[in-house]
Amino acid sequence: VRKIGIIGGGQLGRMTIEEAGKYGAQITVLAPEWPCPAGDLAEATILGKLTDREAILELGSVVDVVSYEIEHVSVEALRELETGGKLVVPSSAVLALIQDKAAQKRLWDAAGLPTAAWRLVEGEETRRPALEEAVASLGGWPVVQKARRGGYDGQGVRVLTGPSSGFLEAASLVEAKVDFTKELAVVVLRDALGHTAAYPCVEMVFDPRARLCDSVLAPADEPASVLARAEALALACVDALGAAAAGAAGAVGVFGVEMFLTSTGEILINEVAPRPHNSGHFTIEACVSSQFDQYLRILLGLPLGSTELLSPAMMVNLVAPAEEGRPGPPAAAPGGELMYEGLEKALALPSVAIHIYGKRELRPFRKMGHLTALGKTAAEARERAEAAAAAIRIRTAENR
Amino acid sequence: VRKIGIIGGGQLGRMTIEEAGKYGAQITVLAPEWPCPAGDLAEATILGKLTDREAILELGSVVDVVSYEIEHVSVEALRELETGGKLVVPSSAVLALIQDKAAQKRLWDAAGLPTAAWRLVEGEETRRPALEEAVASLGGWPVVQKARRGGYDGQGVRVLTGPSSGFLEAASLVEAKVDFTKELAVVVLRDALGHTAAYPCVEMVFDPRARLCDSVLAPADEPASVLARAEALALACVDALGAAAAGAAGAVGVFGVEMFLTSTGEILINEVAPRPHNSGHFTIEACVSSQFDQYLRILLGLPLGSTELLSPAMMVNLVAPAEEGRPGPPAAAPGGELMYEGLEKALALPSVAIHIYGKRELRPFRKMGHLTALGKTAAEARERAEAAAAAIRIRTAENR
Repeated sequence: VRKIGIIGGGQLGRMTIEEAGKYGAQITVLAPEWPCPAGDLAEATILGKLTDREAILELGSVVDVVSYEIEHVSVEALRELETGGKLVVPSSAVLALIQDKAAQKRLWDAAGLPTAAWRLVEGEETRRPALEEAVASLGGWPVVQKARRGGYDGQGVRVLTGPSSGFLEAASLVEAKVDFTKELAVVVLRDALGHTAAYPCVEMVFDPRARLCDSVLAPADEPASVLARAEALALACVDALGAAAAGAAGAVGVFGVEMFLTSTGEILINEVAPRPHNSGHFTIEACVSSQFDQYLRILLGLPLGSTELLSPAMMVNLVAPAEEGRPGPPAAAPGGELMYEGLEKALALPSVAIHIYGKRELRPFRKMGHLTALGKTAAEARERAEAAAAAIRIRTAENR
Repeated sequence: VRKIGIIGGGQLGRMTIEEAGKYGAQITVLAPEWPCPAGDLAEATILGKLTDREAILELGSVVDVVSYEIEHVSVEALRELETGGKLVVPSSAVLALIQDKAAQKRLWDAAGLPTAAWRLVEGEETRRPALEEAVASLGGWPVVQKARRGGYDGQGVRVLTGPSSGFLEAASLVEAKVDFTKELAVVVLRDALGHTAAYPCVEMVFDPRARLCDSVLAPADEPASVLARAEALALACVDALGAAAAGAAGAVGVFGVEMFLTSTGEILINEVAPRPHNSGHFTIEACVSSQFDQYLRILLGLPLGSTELLSPAMMVNLVAPAEEGRPGPPAAAPGGELMYEGLEKALALPSVAIHIYGKRELRPFRKMGHLTALGKTAAEARERAEAAAAAIRIRTAENR
């Protein structure tokens, strides 16, 4: 059995390790701190920054295959590992493409895949003029500005409604604001032999109440023809990535493909993540083989498993509360033991499963865990999931 | 979150730990050796015999709740923990009943639950006369002789066809040999509040070929009325156990209830195991909440999850080969690295999952892992599972 190294200490690594025992696979993680969600369960943890060349080379020296559960890692260090003959999944070439949002957009354009019209905003000195020129060529405000590099979980993205909107002071691109009715996502798998598979298309559900828990409904509540088009587009994205990075054995790995469904029924690529994806957490309970199981199969050189959905499902992220307006000390009080109140009530609901990531500290809106509910119908799954999520409150022991 | 202690270092503990990460639960195991399947994944391992009072008390001193994944542990030490206020699940009173097969049989008789007629064979000096007298009162040969204590995986059980059959030299009971057509099993759950639930009834499938891999088909290939009767009988068994041990808070835990379906359609209790059961492994892939998830919920004081079957399934035990007739050095050669050949072929079949237990040494017929296949029908699941099992060969690296 191959020894696996994963760069990143978060929940994606943790859930991967939870599936690794059945293969007898040993996983070493590289994480900036310990304890951490993945480090708690890993065979060993190497402490270091995710961009630290030395730490990444050290990880490579003790494992057979190196992967990453977050995209902000050093491409150069991964390339160095590859040059030394180490297997890196997905390859450094794929990661280089994904880290640069402009390169991603160019790739979709070159492959003829639908994505929102966009312009690069370049040049340190001319950023505002360049921005206004780009906006004009896209047909005017509003636009979405995205940092070329480093964005994560909504960071590095701004909606600009007019020339007076505060914009990102960074190399970026602007996109025509898409008039979308829904965000869709598909998790795609591609193994070293080029076999691909896709999970059913899901939709993001945004809670209209104050909780700000984003949710994922599987399958998306759209006609089969829409789901099929989204799945085909997601597969085409990963194929295009693979073709562009063919010199490095193509795009091998688990990919989360985020898309927009527009008001006219078009589906546009938003972006691709080169790792297990929040929109695929439902697969743990609802599918024969979860996205984490598939990730391990790919890392171990085993065939892909089934992506069949056994039951409709809804996943809800359990996020830390916002600090504003809450009584007591700040929610992020370090060292305070975390309490997950209401688990009994949530888990008493039919077909509800919970995943707590083991993070030690609350930060506003930080993903602390998730829950998944199954149901005979998507509506039933949603009802159960929302009731379960409403029952749970995460707080520090001091913050009553 | 409660700290959990599990006595036993085998695969049942291992698969429990694999589900524990999502609850952030820390598990310490007591095992006679390390490395071992559960110890590999546990937070910590205490080395000691499963019957060692000191070791069990030490385990109790570092956790909030003590359980066991094997029934051959010291009841006296568990009772001592309970007296000291430690939670033990299932209670020592339940385990005492289960360890003594005669006490089990008396319990089913007293509760009016169907089980094969039986007689106790007592007295060191008069064992053969006592045995022959018992057989006569059961209506004659053949009979099944079972050691009162210590049997496991078919050990401690003999079929006696006549007075010349070699019998067990131990305190035992004899049962009229049941003319059964099938062995059925149901995994039953009971939490501290007395809530109970049962998984669907399964049947044991015995491979007619030489492989000697016992398998489990879920659901059993019998009419719904038979399944319902078996499930009701299994629940009644655990209720009876709970009533008999009510002074120790009843029967709390996961119970595997083995039954016979006779040629006349009767269902008879065979025996009960006070732990997750081989016949429940299919629940990992085929049910919303697996038997290991339920075990953790019970140990953590959380509500029971759903026992709903999402898909027909078949589980096949992957056992070590018999030594006889095999070329090369003995299969049990210690220190030899184990090879699991054919995994690629097995996992390329649709909806097949594998679980390798991480045992370091082959012994003839030892359970080294299992696989589960799902299918639209039980027949499809069976076809896939048998094809997958046929593809796998476990051997030592030296033993080609």
